[in-house]
Amino acid sequence: MMNTNGTFNVQRQYLSHWDNIYYHLVTMPWKYFFALVFLCYIALNLIFASAYWLIGLEQLNGLTPGDFWHNFSSVYFFSTQTLTTVGYGHISPAGFLANLVASLESFIGLLAFALISGLLYSRFSRPSAKIVFSENLLVAPYRDGLGVMFRMGNARKSELIETEVQIILAMNQTEPDGATTRRFYGVPLEISKVSFFALSWTVVHGIDEKSPLWGFSPQDLEDANAEFMVLVKGTDEANQQAVHTRHSYVASDMVWNARFQPVITRNTQGLPHVLVRQIGAYEMLS
Amino acid sequence: MMNTNGTFNVQRQYLSHWDNIYYHLVTMPWKYFFALVFLCYIALNLIFASAYWLIGLEQLNGLTPGDFWHNFSSVYFFSTQTLTTVGYGHISPAGFLANLVASLESFIGLLAFALISGLLYSRFSRPSAKIVFSENLLVAPYRDGLGVMFRMGNARKSELIETEVQIILAMNQTEPDGATTRRFYGVPLEISKVSFFALSWTVVHGIDEKSPLWGFSPQDLEDANAEFMVLVKGTDEANQQAVHTRHSYVASDMVWNARFQPVITRNTQGLPHVLVRQIGAYEMLS
Amino acid sequence: MMNTNGTFNVQRQYLSHWDNIYYHLVTMPWKYFFALVFLCYIALNLIFASAYWLIGLEQLNGLTPGDFWHNFSSVYFFSTQTLTTVGYGHISPAGFLANLVASLESFIGLLAFALISGLLYSRFSRPSAKIVFSENLLVAPYRDGLGVMFRMGNARKSELIETEVQIILAMNQTEPDGATTRRFYGVPLEISKVSFFALSWTVVHGIDEKSPLWGFSPQDLEDANAEFMVLVKGTDEANQQAVHTRHSYVASDMVWNARFQPVITRNTQGLPHVLVRQIGAYEMLS
Amino acid sequence: MMNTNGTFNVQRQYLSHWDNIYYHLVTMPWKYFFALVFLCYIALNLIFASAYWLIGLEQLNGLTPGDFWHNFSSVYFFSTQTLTTVGYGHISPAGFLANLVASLESFIGLLAFALISGLLYSRFSRPSAKIVFSENLLVAPYRDGLGVMFRMGNARKSELIETEVQIILAMNQTEPDGATTRRFYGVPLEISKVSFFALSWTVVHGIDEKSPLWGFSPQDLEDANAEFMVLVKGTDEANQQAVHTRHSYVASDMVWNARFQPVITRNTQGLPHVLVRQIGAYEMLS
Repeated sequence: MMNTNGTFNVQRQYLSHWDNIYYHLVTMPWKYFFALVFLCYIALNLIFASAYWLIGLEQLNGLTPGDFWHNFSSVYFFSTQTLTTVGYGHISPAGFLANLVASLESFIGLLAFALISGLLYSRFSRPSAKIVFSENLLVAPYRDGLGVMFRMGNARKSELIETEVQIILAMNQTEPDGATTRRFYGVPLEISKVSFFALSWTVVHGIDEKSPLWGFSPQDLEDANAEFMVLVKGTDEANQQAVHTRHSYVASDMVWNARFQPVITRNTQGLPHVLVRQIGAYEMLS
Repeated sequence: MMNTNGTFNVQRQYLSHWDNIYYHLVTMPWKYFFALVFLCYIALNLIFASAYWLIGLEQLNGLTPGDFWHNFSSVYFFSTQTLTTVGYGHISPAGFLANLVASLESFIGLLAFALISGLLYSRFSRPSAKIVFSENLLVAPYRDGLGVMFRMGNARKSELIETEVQIILAMNQTEPDGATTRRFYGVPLEISKVSFFALSWTVVHGIDEKSPLWGFSPQDLEDANAEFMVLVKGTDEANQQAVHTRHSYVASDMVWNARFQPVITRNTQGLPHVLVRQIGAYEMLS
Repeated sequence: MMNTNGTFNVQRQYLSHWDNIYYHLVTMPWKYFFALVFLCYIALNLIFASAYWLIGLEQLNGLTPGDFWHNFSSVYFFSTQTLTTVGYGHISPAGFLANLVASLESFIGLLAFALISGLLYSRFSRPSAKIVFSENLLVAPYRDGLGVMFRMGNARKSELIETEVQIILAMNQTEPDGATTRRFYGVPLEISKVSFFALSWTVVHGIDEKSPLWGFSPQDLEDANAEFMVLVKGTDEANQQAVHTRHSYVASDMVWNARFQPVITRNTQGLPHVLVRQIGAYEMLS
Repeated sequence: MMNTNGTFNVQRQYLSHWDNIYYHLVTMPWKYFFALVFLCYIALNLIFASAYWLIGLEQLNGLTPGDFWHNFSSVYFFSTQTLTTVGYGHISPAGFLANLVASLESFIGLLAFALISGLLYSRFSRPSAKIVFSENLLVAPYRDGLGVMFRMGNARKSELIETEVQIILAMNQTEPDGATTRRFYGVPLEISKVSFFALSWTVVHGIDEKSPLWGFSPQDLEDANAEFMVLVKGTDEANQQAVHTRHSYVASDMVWNARFQPVITRNTQGLPHVLVRQIGAYEMLS
């Protein structure tokens, strides 16, 4: 149901594509965003250049007519100078229609750049944590029984405070009438909230009689199509905004009888140093 | 009291209309917003054009006087070039007064566009969920008795997480002294909070002895002018902001002895597919 | 301790006045804000005009020298054209130094207007409720005893949802050793939270044996310098942000044996209409 | 583990330095931010000036060629006029390539200033409290035993409301097997939440049998490398955003048998006046 990166494996019907425009503009990768902005810039200029062309070159002062290519590039560049409000003025609108279109174009140019300002800021300020999760869910001796655990680390410079973790387990279950339904269980955690998450955090669920996993073998979990949905919620300290991150583990991501290797060392100045790239490193228990 | 779309059916007295300007500028439909901005642009240009006209055409270099229409359109377009700071310069202020007004106009132009930038961003970033509600409230067998239920779906691409639903029931009640007063009741729900709301959600209230609806017939509810106010609260994942949505059902929206038809199918790739347009589809129970 | 409008009657020592610049720029009245921005515009132009003057008029092409006043106004207006980036170009920098200063000025101009954009948006988006409070705190028969109550109304078009009220009572109390200390008490309320606050809300504290006001006469409260600090917290629906408002009542604001007059009427279309201006209207009980 | 100013004494491995660019741009001191922006301005102009130079001076109208220095400064200043969109026009692009580069430069200029607008606003609106903490943690008689206390004051004009304090104590502890592990304890406080924090606040932990400090001598705490991590959370009233601040005290910051001197006086108008600079002033008890 959930992909490993926490997006949902679901398709929706939308009432109108306009509803999602802001969402797409804010979440698309930077390279596509800049490409789109640049294409809009070219397209707007082509539209206005065509308008000046249709109005006639004689309405633009300072433009010396030549062949088609020279003429069109001249009106195109006049359009860019108007849209960006650079307005050198060696070419300037003389007739009424050219003036009218130019006054509209510079207005639209300012509006468009105001819009881009707003979008750039939206993209910048979108709260986002970058939490690195171990690839595997380990099952290891814990207290008097077994525990299921994963490890996560903060891969950002900005601290994550008041961090909370919640795990929801989805499993197929055969009903008395033989039908298979998918059921959801909360998975209680040893510690589910920390005041600050400066280093790494190994999140542990102890398998006792109350655990939804009690008595399940690896094969049972595989058969039940078990999925652990991890929901992390915290406050990013750089902008003090709430951030949410998700991750998903399926039964085949589980490693039985293993433990995580240390991920915190001391650097040359004696400071604790978190090796985020090795967050998932584990070793088998004999 | 509440309209179906969740706005309140109430009129207020305002202390000053200035208090609501930001509210209107941010909530008005896009087409009115752009129309208003465009009208302000024209109005500002007319004001400044009149100022240049009153100061005299001889204070503007490069302007060749002609008939009234030519002259006024010349000062008007000079004004647009100054307000948008495009400043081609084929017309330029020469005298002291024209220079003074032009320096003021370009300053006001930049302020105005800064303001529009801010408003555009406010409009963009306004958190808003688009939740689709079933048109009807169904009453169907539920557990050992009856349940009242409605269904809702997320019509946005952006996930809604930590979603909570609350229902408040308003009913007229006859007091012992014969007077009719409107009373409000909380309506307990089977599940009132979900960690994520990826597909559709059927919100259910079981009618048991503790329910404010216990023992009411359809006619009783109609007579009592019953209104179910639904308040939904969640976190929009695109910008991690809280969003609130409301909906209202009245007694005549209730359908007794019916159940919702399935709204989730598999698309061609086998992904769950939510048919948001059919969120309200139901069938009568025999 | 608190003024009627909710600001604190306290003076603080500041470590640095720079810490409060953003606070002042965002909270000062609009007319002062615009006046300050305009003064900065004039000041910046005077500084740059002086720079061009010192560099020499011969470094500016298109400037025809005259008397001092003519010359200075010319460099001043050249400065305004550069700062706002309107750049007509009938005067343009020719020498190296003039070019250098002009390239700096247009850069500073853009930075300054970016800054003003940011401040304008900050001012716009600052969450603020406009709640109108009754001028008086009424004491009236309530249930089997007395109740203290005030009324408040929302004077904005934007709804206030999930509104919570808290009252803290401050009173002087004579200690056994004769010293007077100021003590703070929480005041329990009949209803302290509402899901939506669409009309008016009369907040009531019932005076029973557990009330900190139990057994106090009007004179006692006056003598104890009693102050009721009202803290209101809600979510503004226009931008879904939390808003906080405060109000203060002192003993002399209390009216004993009075009740509020109705504040909700029906308008011509039958809609409930809240008379916000009469939120404080009360009548004495016989 | 924590520095006195509340930053963590920890080093992390980052997956990509791009992840932290926004963090650095928003948190770097203002002088570095402006220096960086200015350097980017110069660098962009040098790049575009080189482009015009390579294209050839003959593609720029109005440029009178001279020696290298004159020529390069001419194209450099033409670039500044294009990037800032001031566009005087005494020099203007004539050939196709120069026009193309100029249309790109003015576009990039507008994007860059939109980006700076966004960053300036991010920097401005970043919620930040300025809480001043006493340098020392005092231990003084409290109730029937001892209490550990520190004092803090708000050094901003903006109120801090709904302020909560939490203390976490870290101590080395020798395990039965002789190994030393670092353990964390919550430290219960007399009052851990206040509705408003207008003056100063002395936060007190009473040392009773349940306290993790019970029975510890100053030397014991020193030996255990005790560290008190103070986490303060509140709502800044100027922008109604949550703010978090941290502070750290180690065993050597503790002063036994001392009490804080008064920090609140009356100013000349009789208003309470908080002497924030003397928040840490204490006196020894005999």
